[in-house]
Amino acid sequence: MAIAEQVDLASYCLETARKAKRASRALAAVSGAVRNHWLRESAAALRASIEPILAANQLDLAAAPSYGLTDAAIDRLKLTPARIEDIAIGLEQVAALPDPLGEIIESSIRPSGIDVQKVRCPLGVVFFIYESRPNVTADAAAICLKSGNAVILRGGKEALHSSQAIVSILVEVADRTGIPAGALQLVDTTDRAAVGHFLKLDGEIDVAIPRGGEGLIRRVVEEARMPVIKHFNGNCHVYVDQYADLAIATKVTINSKCHRLGVCNAAESLLVHQDVAAAFLPMIAPALTDRGIELRGCEATRQIVPTAKPATDEDFFTEYLGPIISIKVVASLEAAIEHINHYGSKHTDAIITRDLAASRKFAVEVDSAAVMINASTRFNDGFQFGLGAEIGISTDKFHARGPCGLKELTTYKYVVYGEGQIRE
Amino acid sequence: MAIAEQVDLASYCLETARKAKRASRALAAVSGAVRNHWLRESAAALRASIEPILAANQLDLAAAPSYGLTDAAIDRLKLTPARIEDIAIGLEQVAALPDPLGEIIESSIRPSGIDVQKVRCPLGVVFFIYESRPNVTADAAAICLKSGNAVILRGGKEALHSSQAIVSILVEVADRTGIPAGALQLVDTTDRAAVGHFLKLDGEIDVAIPRGGEGLIRRVVEEARMPVIKHFNGNCHVYVDQYADLAIATKVTINSKCHRLGVCNAAESLLVHQDVAAAFLPMIAPALTDRGIELRGCEATRQIVPTAKPATDEDFFTEYLGPIISIKVVASLEAAIEHINHYGSKHTDAIITRDLAASRKFAVEVDSAAVMINASTRFNDGFQFGLGAEIGISTDKFHARGPCGLKELTTYKYVVYGEGQIRE
Repeated sequence: MAIAEQVDLASYCLETARKAKRASRALAAVSGAVRNHWLRESAAALRASIEPILAANQLDLAAAPSYGLTDAAIDRLKLTPARIEDIAIGLEQVAALPDPLGEIIESSIRPSGIDVQKVRCPLGVVFFIYESRPNVTADAAAICLKSGNAVILRGGKEALHSSQAIVSILVEVADRTGIPAGALQLVDTTDRAAVGHFLKLDGEIDVAIPRGGEGLIRRVVEEARMPVIKHFNGNCHVYVDQYADLAIATKVTINSKCHRLGVCNAAESLLVHQDVAAAFLPMIAPALTDRGIELRGCEATRQIVPTAKPATDEDFFTEYLGPIISIKVVASLEAAIEHINHYGSKHTDAIITRDLAASRKFAVEVDSAAVMINASTRFNDGFQFGLGAEIGISTDKFHARGPCGLKELTTYKYVVYGEGQIRE
Repeated sequence: MAIAEQVDLASYCLETARKAKRASRALAAVSGAVRNHWLRESAAALRASIEPILAANQLDLAAAPSYGLTDAAIDRLKLTPARIEDIAIGLEQVAALPDPLGEIIESSIRPSGIDVQKVRCPLGVVFFIYESRPNVTADAAAICLKSGNAVILRGGKEALHSSQAIVSILVEVADRTGIPAGALQLVDTTDRAAVGHFLKLDGEIDVAIPRGGEGLIRRVVEEARMPVIKHFNGNCHVYVDQYADLAIATKVTINSKCHRLGVCNAAESLLVHQDVAAAFLPMIAPALTDRGIELRGCEATRQIVPTAKPATDEDFFTEYLGPIISIKVVASLEAAIEHINHYGSKHTDAIITRDLAASRKFAVEVDSAAVMINASTRFNDGFQFGLGAEIGISTDKFHARGPCGLKELTTYKYVVYGEGQIRE
């Protein structure tokens, strides 16, 4: 790239970010009614624009083989009238959610007489980097603007035409419904260097949210100067306690592992208390095998289930995202907790037990975003938890943990009312 | 430094951090009664150890001139029986605060029948880096352990002996009151490279909190791989609106500027609406000048107050931390808000007004951690806000904003209770 182009790209990114920052200040004062009106009008506009959206999507589909996309990726890229209807319904659902802004989270009148209110407000500018599904474009725009944030969308080049078509509709509606100009912008260069420029602009961008493969997330974490809401692996466990109801253990293990293989909240590892291993493993092993799952077990597991392959230490660290499960027999609840905290990824871990003390100990000591007691790991999800919408599942502890919905895209400020109070 | 020493230092830091991590897991399950018992017993032990603490402090005071410490810095370093009593009282006050852990922040029973609880829990391991005041050692240990976090303290070399004396007492009490070993550790090397090693250990350390000068904070932000709770400048404003009560405006401006000059929540800049400038500036100018404050004004200010020096653009960006104030006459509330968002540091900004709409607009649109309405900027403080204790004032928006007390050192996890629910 010539120097002039590099300068151009850097100034393009800076100008985009500054525009977003200015818009974010104005957007903080825009009422929920206006933001919801934009969402509902956008849904209507998408429904009225099926043809141009499909035409743009055709350009992406035509180029897909040249990007080496798999059939599954091409299917995710493909839009249909039904999928556009789903996108429109999604916008309406976000409109129907309660407005997170302005909530007084805490308040007190202090001895000095000042009235201290902790008030929920937007973070400011979100930089959202994602891969090729065009529906994510509309979802992310909806969640960010509903929570009062300006957003800079950077989608995959594979979906650029589709995303441009969708965003141009949402922006046109924004212009006529009172959303400040610049509140929604799509990065329209496919130059990868643009991401690097944006990630340096911590004066303009308040949070970066990467959504995609581990490589993308690691790059963003490495380069970002602003905070990142990130979502690493989900190496999730089901622990079958000595006091487990084995029917529940079977049902939950099968659902956690087999309901969907390639998702972050699928179980990758099964821990079984030694006192129930002889009863439980012969029940669960064929149930998993029948569903096409390969078993990789510790030595004690293989004595009970000889068909299981031997599991290495590496297996216990692995998020398979596929038809394999690692199995370990543990000596105690404590050993199970220690195993999970060592090998796990702080995402979602379940215990199956009838014992109250065991459930409470597991809940306190397992250091994960979600702890399930007698329920499938698959429930760790913004919709299942009642957040209404979700922009990702954070495996961090800072600011946002677990599913990130509207509230997780907000911060708070202190608003203090006095009548001339001063500090003595 | 020889390579062997560098290796030693790196392993020392890693071992310290791993010990803290192990302790943090155990500490998460330690009851509030045990944590409070440790605090109260530590207060008693400090009172019983005045002599050895003062002896250790003497070593630091003797070395102080060789570190080039100013008289003010030496005074802050000096311990007396009264100051040790204050430290002990501080520990008892933290013990008396409500336990932040275990609070169910939100909960709901979902259509699937699962009971979803969002439960407050510790962050894990805090790396706290601070400068030379030995009382901070006890304060930070108290706040971190009370909130269930293990802490690695790295104090200034100037206070090392004093800090060692205090920490050895707190650790001795920890050992006999059931606090896990390693929950409280003081870094006992003064090698600056140690900080760099710790800042890389994002697998072990959950948050870094620097407290000190801007150089320290910038270094930590630059090098840290874990989140940082940071506290940059406080370039705070008082805006006197066209509808201000000028008696309140005078009182609050004087208090905000003059109550303490060198603190982050002191006002550094005064904005005055043009409609009240001719009435207000002649009142406030002599009041500030009489208190030794130098005035630096815009052109319009200097037409009314000819003794004011001219203010440059740089002045409006400056946190003086001293006896100077910048003054600007603004054309409107909007111009005041724009000025604050452009020149300010997102810390604390006040409006003086009787107008409800102006107060609401200012509160929503000024993008600062605290917005004061008819009250002094000096109120932005953990104790004044009722947090009970404070480990700093965050100028970030992410995770913690404004004063950071016990809650700001916590995160949450989702604990989900089911009876065998699976996803269909």
